[in-house]
Amino acid sequence: MRRPVQPPQPSSAHEQPLYRQLYLRLRESILTGSLRPGQRLASSRVLASQMAVARNTVLQAYLQLEVEGYITAERGSGHYVSPLLPGVGGSAARKTAPAQTAANSLGSVRNTFDFVPESLRRPIPPVPFRINLPELDQFPIETWARLQGAVLREARRSAGIVALLGEADAQGDLSLRSAIADHVSIARGVRCSADAVIITAGAQHAMDMLLRVLTQPGDTVGLEDPCFPGALSAARAAACRIVPVPVDAQGADLDSIQTPPHDMRVLLLCPSKQFPLGVTMSLPRRLALVDWARRSAAWIIEDDYDSEYRFDGKPIPSLQGLDGGRQVIYVGTFSKVLFPSLRMGFIVSPPSLVEPLAAARAISGRHGSTLEQRVLARFIDDGHFARHVRRMKALYRDRQAVLLDACRQTLGERLDIERADSGLQTMGWLPPGSDDREVARAARSFGVEVAPLSRFCLQTNRPPGLVIGYGGFTAEQIRAAAHQLARATGTVHG
Amino acid sequence: MRRPVQPPQPSSAHEQPLYRQLYLRLRESILTGSLRPGQRLASSRVLASQMAVARNTVLQAYLQLEVEGYITAERGSGHYVSPLLPGVGGSAARKTAPAQTAANSLGSVRNTFDFVPESLRRPIPPVPFRINLPELDQFPIETWARLQGAVLREARRSAGIVALLGEADAQGDLSLRSAIADHVSIARGVRCSADAVIITAGAQHAMDMLLRVLTQPGDTVGLEDPCFPGALSAARAAACRIVPVPVDAQGADLDSIQTPPHDMRVLLLCPSKQFPLGVTMSLPRRLALVDWARRSAAWIIEDDYDSEYRFDGKPIPSLQGLDGGRQVIYVGTFSKVLFPSLRMGFIVSPPSLVEPLAAARAISGRHGSTLEQRVLARFIDDGHFARHVRRMKALYRDRQAVLLDACRQTLGERLDIERADSGLQTMGWLPPGSDDREVARAARSFGVEVAPLSRFCLQTNRPPGLVIGYGGFTAEQIRAAAHQLARATGTVHG
Repeated sequence: MRRPVQPPQPSSAHEQPLYRQLYLRLRESILTGSLRPGQRLASSRVLASQMAVARNTVLQAYLQLEVEGYITAERGSGHYVSPLLPGVGGSAARKTAPAQTAANSLGSVRNTFDFVPESLRRPIPPVPFRINLPELDQFPIETWARLQGAVLREARRSAGIVALLGEADAQGDLSLRSAIADHVSIARGVRCSADAVIITAGAQHAMDMLLRVLTQPGDTVGLEDPCFPGALSAARAAACRIVPVPVDAQGADLDSIQTPPHDMRVLLLCPSKQFPLGVTMSLPRRLALVDWARRSAAWIIEDDYDSEYRFDGKPIPSLQGLDGGRQVIYVGTFSKVLFPSLRMGFIVSPPSLVEPLAAARAISGRHGSTLEQRVLARFIDDGHFARHVRRMKALYRDRQAVLLDACRQTLGERLDIERADSGLQTMGWLPPGSDDREVARAARSFGVEVAPLSRFCLQTNRPPGLVIGYGGFTAEQIRAAAHQLARATGTVHG
Repeated sequence: MRRPVQPPQPSSAHEQPLYRQLYLRLRESILTGSLRPGQRLASSRVLASQMAVARNTVLQAYLQLEVEGYITAERGSGHYVSPLLPGVGGSAARKTAPAQTAANSLGSVRNTFDFVPESLRRPIPPVPFRINLPELDQFPIETWARLQGAVLREARRSAGIVALLGEADAQGDLSLRSAIADHVSIARGVRCSADAVIITAGAQHAMDMLLRVLTQPGDTVGLEDPCFPGALSAARAAACRIVPVPVDAQGADLDSIQTPPHDMRVLLLCPSKQFPLGVTMSLPRRLALVDWARRSAAWIIEDDYDSEYRFDGKPIPSLQGLDGGRQVIYVGTFSKVLFPSLRMGFIVSPPSLVEPLAAARAISGRHGSTLEQRVLARFIDDGHFARHVRRMKALYRDRQAVLLDACRQTLGERLDIERADSGLQTMGWLPPGSDDREVARAARSFGVEVAPLSRFCLQTNRPPGLVIGYGGFTAEQIRAAAHQLARATGTVHG
């Protein structure tokens, strides 16, 4: 590999790969303001010849900066310093430029968390085809209310008020941890006992806790490309270096990345149903990844966000079970199976991580509400959970059928919609050359929420597509929204 | 100031104060294993002459290492590398020694969060005189259950099920934010509207979120000395440099520290009732601190953990109100006023920090349970909260009276117990020369929980004392426990 002839600023990081040195310099220039927001960067060809490096090296540095939000790529016109810039790099950026962030007087506070997308902060309107929204009107709320009363009355009868209302174990209430361990052992093939379960305030909280415990700033974290924005936000908050891992028809493909995979400390995956593509990871790929994790002493976080509802046949067993729970950490959530505002999820952890995770839980909220944990435990133990899942599975399968039918009738060639094996949403592909963000904007003006695939892409370009949720909507709503979506695409293509 | 004649390892940090350079070198030696756990450090006198620096410089470096948990001081025998060591420095430590922390195979995982004390992870038994425990048997649990039912029924009637069960605003439910804004404006003189309130999962979560948003690794955070272990843990998790601020009869005394106060980015205070000493900060001190924060563009976090129950006269208005909510961020919690397992607290934020805090909330749990937020809002709005506070205030005042009487009768000279103006606990001073940890251990073997003051001290030595909680116990329990405590002190002194 050629080295730069005259390193402009001899870097202390000269042992690092060339692209990384270049990346660090460019980032420094952006953070110190030498490169201003909106400014156009030199083309990769010009910079490569100027620095006497391969053009690929420059492109790799640009991609890293793009993934981390420092620069944006405008197709055909080049790379620009991100106009929104400050704070995009999270604490990594803050570390480099304290002077810029210290100014907190006079209201001029820099939002060091502005990498968290609006969609995580404010709810997206619950209109069709909003993704990740379960059916809520059919949730057995009377049963829930009855169990709340029962848990309160029992505590009073058994003089257990202090245990119910007082401080509790950061790891979570034993009743819920046991119920979860039983459930995921059977339903998901997870290797698990109650001792290994840590209750969290949902999957997002689990990701955040795990990355705080497992990584240090600058560590490499692999994310599926495309991926859920919450995973990206958690990695940015932990100031990690993010390596996008392309997804093909078999799932995440670690062999396709240039970074030496042994540098990767944590890899986040959705093997059961990739978000948002919906791919189920193949068994050979699963075996290869487990093997890689063991050889590299890397952690895999398995985000099993949407696996309860598999329409045909038995659920795919978890990656954690395949690994025997050594390097794979399992994350589950009740947000989609029950209801999102419950804010209850869990981690199934290897024994060595239980104490660190309980500690991370202790400082980020101490523990969950004991009352709600016990109500959920009863809901599972008494069979309401299994019954609800069974009912909803049938409902979602039917709703998807309505969606497929309505889209094919109404949109025809303008949307190639896929049949999902499971879950609350599916992919619809737009004609080549469409701009999926533009279609999503147009749809919104017709009262329809669809998520453009490109919103979730890190660096891999994909054909234009829409992620379309059907879980939370009636057949009538789905048909009406398909009609509106057809009108919206008409305005874009017309 | 003299400089070392031959800096043994020329440090890139040579622009930093001398004690800081020394601190960094020693920390490096500890983290790389050159200094082993349990190893005795050179005496400050020897090291000072060897390094050609003032002895005070060495002592300052040792103090910093001690505060951060890298070394321990054994009175009379010198300083030792902490035997429990790994991870004590939080991510600051991890940054320096990646090789040590990367080993995650074979179960040999280093607990990078082991600075979080056991008391935050597992509940302390709810026996007398456990601190921070409110009366729970008299919590109006029927009212709470009734409001739960009412909120569910109303949502169903008004077709608001999706709003109740679906994803919600990371900042918190507007009903609760409004109720809190009204309450703290009136009761605590806080400058506040619902827009400025961010709902958290308790005060600990609020501290964690605030330090993640306001600081970067290495930033200086001031903590009262002594202080609540949760505040220390949050500062360690943020990898901040911790500067202990001594507390005198007027409250935290910023003038007494050697660190230039303009380096301090955040200062955590409990002005209403210092934890655990119980001091209420004087008005001159308050004015000086607000002035300092404005001049230094520093943030003050006001932890108002225990202020609802002021026994005599009107509550002391908040520091936030005095400042007009410019540099002072107010943190409140319902853990002690209502019940700990509710896990509900809040931040009253300057406008500029609302979005960053909502983003930090979004990645650390998205938002609180909407049902519980609305129940709490109704509990406040319908007057149950005010009624409960009024009843509990009378109860706690009486319980403290019983405690003072019982201790004076039973323990006499062996415990000089103070009368607290407010809250759930008070200080009892042991005879000079006692070891408060030893007394606490003895008490535990007699079934009594007391917290030794030295557990909360960072670097200031204080006379031996016990923090004694009376809030959660009946008069009978208090008298019996005082008797047991007397027996326990007898075994120690006898």
